[in-house]
Amino acid sequence: MRSLVMTSQNASRIPAISRFMSSQTPDKDYVFRQLFDNRTYTYTYILADTQSKEAIIIDPVLEMAPRDAAIVEELGLKPIFGVNTHVHADHVTGTGDLKKYFPNMKSVIAEVSKAKADKFINHGDVLNFGKFSLECRSTPGHTDGCFSFVWHDKKMAFTGDALLIRGCGRTDFQQGDAKKLYKSVHDHILSLPAETLLYPAHDYTGQTVSSVEEENKYNKRLTKPVEEFVKIMDNLNLPYPKEIDRALPANMVCGYNAAPRS
Amino acid sequence: MRSLVMTSQNASRIPAISRFMSSQTPDKDYVFRQLFDNRTYTYTYILADTQSKEAIIIDPVLEMAPRDAAIVEELGLKPIFGVNTHVHADHVTGTGDLKKYFPNMKSVIAEVSKAKADKFINHGDVLNFGKFSLECRSTPGHTDGCFSFVWHDKKMAFTGDALLIRGCGRTDFQQGDAKKLYKSVHDHILSLPAETLLYPAHDYTGQTVSSVEEENKYNKRLTKPVEEFVKIMDNLNLPYPKEIDRALPANMVCGYNAAPRS
Repeated sequence: MRSLVMTSQNASRIPAISRFMSSQTPDKDYVFRQLFDNRTYTYTYILADTQSKEAIIIDPVLEMAPRDAAIVEELGLKPIFGVNTHVHADHVTGTGDLKKYFPNMKSVIAEVSKAKADKFINHGDVLNFGKFSLECRSTPGHTDGCFSFVWHDKKMAFTGDALLIRGCGRTDFQQGDAKKLYKSVHDHILSLPAETLLYPAHDYTGQTVSSVEEENKYNKRLTKPVEEFVKIMDNLNLPYPKEIDRALPANMVCGYNAAPRS
Repeated sequence: MRSLVMTSQNASRIPAISRFMSSQTPDKDYVFRQLFDNRTYTYTYILADTQSKEAIIIDPVLEMAPRDAAIVEELGLKPIFGVNTHVHADHVTGTGDLKKYFPNMKSVIAEVSKAKADKFINHGDVLNFGKFSLECRSTPGHTDGCFSFVWHDKKMAFTGDALLIRGCGRTDFQQGDAKKLYKSVHDHILSLPAETLLYPAHDYTGQTVSSVEEENKYNKRLTKPVEEFVKIMDNLNLPYPKEIDRALPANMVCGYNAAPRS
């Protein structure tokens, strides 16, 4: 049966400071939550250190910010970074709206994206949260400012639109470059240890996770030679993204001041 | 960008025996995958023993069976049980179709459901897969034949429609009984160790997991006294399930011989 969808009204009724602590991974030193937006097929991730409760939110979606805020508050977490893997074209980021719930949270995006944000990252930078850290890897090709984030401690990587499960992001707009994408993914994602779990920004088939080993073996595009890959990407003939004209300007300022979809 | 959705055609091209092995949990002795059906908001779960590769599939959906079969084959798993938490009213089970891919897989359902299946379970039964086992707990109330499954080793429970994240299954048709549901959930799910992760059969808000601790604290219905809970459930005024007339007869034979949705 259909549960009540949270609204900003009921989200704000949740006590801001909670002693409650849980995680997707019990008896562990970290919290991990994967969240889905049914409308844009976007995955949002919450990572946190159980002890300090410092958290990172990756790729929140504007319309889902009240849900995300409620979960963060129920879990008693303190978000310090709201990370955008890139300037999304298919939805407006939630990092702007989440700053209203969590004023200490900084929006983060690649410096090369030329978007506005509280904090800019470059290849090799590290985002610390509690006792953990995320390594920032530049993985351009879908856009120039695409980054992937590696949580070495937990053998997880968050790949944005660079690598999708058995697929990859399109390369036909926003500085898209198939050859560049191929190199990025092979150099900085598929070269990670085989058991590394890969969490993409989207999935359209209901899959939630993959691994480096699986994608090296079964990715329908990236297992091909580069020339064949470029040909595949050049011939996808995908429709113009429905929300791009609304999403790009809002995402160039990390969703700050963005109004929810009317 | 939109990936290709798998079809039974390309699923069947994947080699039946694969030496490849991975899991949602690297360096572990088990495989765990959560899969989503965007149309009916249903979660399907794959659990397996890394060593023997014996697997259990919980609540597959007919139309997604080719996807599920492809993943199972790519991961090199051997499904031995296709478990239905109950006779679903909102979609046709995939256990019938998956038997075509995996002839050694047995469909499983509660004896009290009076549905046809290869194997019937009763409260307290155990389903073994490799070195692991799932405890079967009768949790009626949404339907009489609702079961939850506890993977004690991994502190996970699969709750079907008895308990949903911050909610619960409806109790207004198919032997629904709010008072019975309340007792089932409190006696057999919310009494599990606090850190137990709870995986429901559905979520309509994009959440993937909860825990006993969270639901004991934040469930919007089941934290109320029983009388108030019954009142809430009696006043939901939910629409008649769209697919019930197609789903029930098919699910009473565990999807065996069910035709995909036209």
